[in-house]
Amino acid sequence: MAGTVTVPGSSVPSTPLLKDQLDIVIPTIRNLDFLEMWRPFFQPYHLIIVQDGDPSKVIKVPEGFDYELYNRNDINRILGPKASCISFKDSACRCFGYMVSKKKYVFTIDDDCFVAKDPSGKDINALEQHIKNLLSPSTPFFFNTLYDPYREGADFVRGYPFSLREGAPTAVSHGLWLNIPDYDAPTQMVKPRERNSRYVDAVLTIPKGTLFPMCGMNLAFDRTLIGPAMYFGLMGDGQPIGRYDDMWAGWCVKVICDHLSLGVKTGLPYLWHSKASNPFVNLKKEYKGIFWQEDIIPFFQNATLSKECDTVQKCYISLSEQVREKLGKIDPYFVKLADAMVTWIEAWDELNPSAAASEAVAENGKATK
Amino acid sequence: MAGTVTVPGSSVPSTPLLKDQLDIVIPTIRNLDFLEMWRPFFQPYHLIIVQDGDPSKVIKVPEGFDYELYNRNDINRILGPKASCISFKDSACRCFGYMVSKKKYVFTIDDDCFVAKDPSGKDINALEQHIKNLLSPSTPFFFNTLYDPYREGADFVRGYPFSLREGAPTAVSHGLWLNIPDYDAPTQMVKPRERNSRYVDAVLTIPKGTLFPMCGMNLAFDRTLIGPAMYFGLMGDGQPIGRYDDMWAGWCVKVICDHLSLGVKTGLPYLWHSKASNPFVNLKKEYKGIFWQEDIIPFFQNATLSKECDTVQKCYISLSEQVREKLGKIDPYFVKLADAMVTWIEAWDELNPSAAASEAVAENGKATK
Repeated sequence: MAGTVTVPGSSVPSTPLLKDQLDIVIPTIRNLDFLEMWRPFFQPYHLIIVQDGDPSKVIKVPEGFDYELYNRNDINRILGPKASCISFKDSACRCFGYMVSKKKYVFTIDDDCFVAKDPSGKDINALEQHIKNLLSPSTPFFFNTLYDPYREGADFVRGYPFSLREGAPTAVSHGLWLNIPDYDAPTQMVKPRERNSRYVDAVLTIPKGTLFPMCGMNLAFDRTLIGPAMYFGLMGDGQPIGRYDDMWAGWCVKVICDHLSLGVKTGLPYLWHSKASNPFVNLKKEYKGIFWQEDIIPFFQNATLSKECDTVQKCYISLSEQVREKLGKIDPYFVKLADAMVTWIEAWDELNPSAAASEAVAENGKATK
Repeated sequence: MAGTVTVPGSSVPSTPLLKDQLDIVIPTIRNLDFLEMWRPFFQPYHLIIVQDGDPSKVIKVPEGFDYELYNRNDINRILGPKASCISFKDSACRCFGYMVSKKKYVFTIDDDCFVAKDPSGKDINALEQHIKNLLSPSTPFFFNTLYDPYREGADFVRGYPFSLREGAPTAVSHGLWLNIPDYDAPTQMVKPRERNSRYVDAVLTIPKGTLFPMCGMNLAFDRTLIGPAMYFGLMGDGQPIGRYDDMWAGWCVKVICDHLSLGVKTGLPYLWHSKASNPFVNLKKEYKGIFWQEDIIPFFQNATLSKECDTVQKCYISLSEQVREKLGKIDPYFVKLADAMVTWIEAWDELNPSAAASEAVAENGKATK
C-alpha cells in the first residue's frame, strides 16, 4: 500500500491500488458505453475485453481506456484445438480473459452493471472495495459475529480463538448487486417487480465447508492463488445448459479453497445491476441446471481432495476425474465437461508457463528432499 | 401471526407478537432501572429475573412490569442438591430462568443494554426482530448471498437449490451490539476506545458445521427446540473461569442444532451496550478460557453425535460424556462440568415434566413399532 495517497474528500486514491497488478475482464457483445460511468475508477487499469458472438462485429470502447480485445477468431488462433474449452455465445467466455491476463489479480464485471451509491449518496468504488477484500485475510475456520474483523472499527469478538486471528489468504471477493437481484428464472417470473434496495454494510468470509452461489457479475480474485480453478465451464452454443457458468466455477473454487485453506469473502461492494434478463430465455437456459444442481451440490459437498493435491491445478484435475466418474452418470454432458476441465488446465499452463514451471520446480524440490 | 395488527407508523404492534408464548430472562445484581427504556417493548411480556449474589438484597423492578424473581435461596429451594449446576456470582445463573420458564420462547438480555436506534433514528424493537428471526426458517445447508431469504425484499438467489428453500426450523436468534462491542479482555485493553457504530442491516444463518462465539447479552431461542442445551455452565464463584458461560452454551447448542437440522441466526437486532466491563477483572476471569478455547473449539468441531441422539437431552448427555473423556484430560474442571451438564438435564426434566414425558412417550411409541 506504500505510495498510495488518498485525496481528502475523494474516494479515488491518487495512485489507484494495485494499478499494475490487476486486470479488468469484461465479456460483451455490444459497445462498451457502460464504461463511461466507471471511468473515474477503471481508467487507470488495463482492460481485457472478451468479445462473444459474431467476431466480425466491431465493439466500440470509449476513448482513453487501455485495453486488449479478443474475439472468437483470436481465441481459436491462440488456443488452437484447446479453444474447445471456451464457451461461445455465453458470458462463460470471460474465463479466456483470466487465462491471458498476466496480472496477479482479476476483477470481472458485466456490461449491464453500473456504479451504485452507498446510503450516504456517494458513488461506490467497487474495485477499491474488492481490492481491500483481497488484500486483507479471510476467516474461514470460525465465524466472527461482527463480520470482517479486519475492517476499520471491527475486530474479533470475545470467544474467537487467538490462534486463528492471523486468518487465511483471501482468494476470492464476491460482490453484490443493488436494483435487479441475481435471481433464477422461476423467481424472476414469480417476483417480476422485486428490486434489491437493502444495502448491507458487511463483508464476511464464507465458512470452510459451506458452498455458495457465486455470481460472475461483480467478482474479483487472486489469479496466483486460485486462477486455474476459475473455469466457467461449457455453456451456451452447442451445450444443453446456460447461466450456470459462474455457479460451476463457484462450486469448484470453494471446494479447492477449503482444501488449500484459502478464503472466500462475500458482501461489499455493491454495484447497480441495471436490467433483468428475459426470464423466458433464462428458463430455457437454466432448465436442466435447476434439476442437475440438486445432484451437483451434494456431489461438491462430499468431494474430497487428497493430500497430494497441493496445487490448484492438481486439485482441479482431481475434481475433473470425480466429475467424470460421478456426475457422468447423470448426463453425458458431464463427461464432456470433465474433458473440458482437463483441456482448460492444459491451456492455462500453456499460457502461464512461469507458474507451471515454478510449480514443476517446487515439485522437483520436493521429490529430491 | 393471526390477531396481530400493526399500528401504521408505529413499530409496536397493537397486540405484541407471541405475548403469551415468550419470557424475558434477566440476570442481575442491581435495581432494574434499565427496564424504563424498554417499557414500550417489554411491558406486555412476562419477565423472569434471576438475582445473582447476596439474596438478602432487594432488587427494585419498575412498576407495571409482570415478573417473577428468583434469588439464590429460591434456586436452592427449588432445585435442592441439583442447584449445584447453577453458577453463583456470574451471569451464567441466568440459565435457571430458562429452566423455570413455561413458555415456548425465551429472550435474554443484560441489564446494561439499552434500546439502540436504526440508521433512520428510529428506536429498534429488538424483541420484535428476534421473534421475526425465530418465526421464519433458517438456511444452514447452503449460503444465500443476499442473506436471510425470508426477509421482505429478499429471496434465494440464482443457483440456490430449490429442494432447500423450505429451510430448517430456527432454534436460536443471536443479536448484536452497537457502542461497546463484545470484546475479550486483551482486545479491550488494546483498543480501549473502539466503539461499534456499524449498523449491518442483515440477518443470516450460521452454516451447518461452523461454530460461532455466542454472546448471551442479546439472545433469543425456542425452548422447545433447543432449551435443554442452553446450559451456561459452571462459572464464577468457586470456579476457575468466568465470561465463558455463553460461549460454552453456544458451542454445545451449535453442535446439537447441526445434528438435529435446526437453524441458528445471527445479525439483527442491535441493542445499545452501554458500558464496557473492567478489562483487568475480565482478564482474570477469562485467563484460563483463552488457553482452553484453543482445545475446546477443535473438540466441538470434531464432536459427533450418533443417530440414537434424537432429542436435545440425549445429544447433551452424549456431549457431556465426550467432555468428560476428552476435555477432562486438560483440567479436572471439565470433569466437574461434565457432571454439572448431567445434573442440568436432570433438573430440566424435573421442572419440565411434560416435555420429558412426551419424549418418553415418543420413545415408547418408537420401541413398540
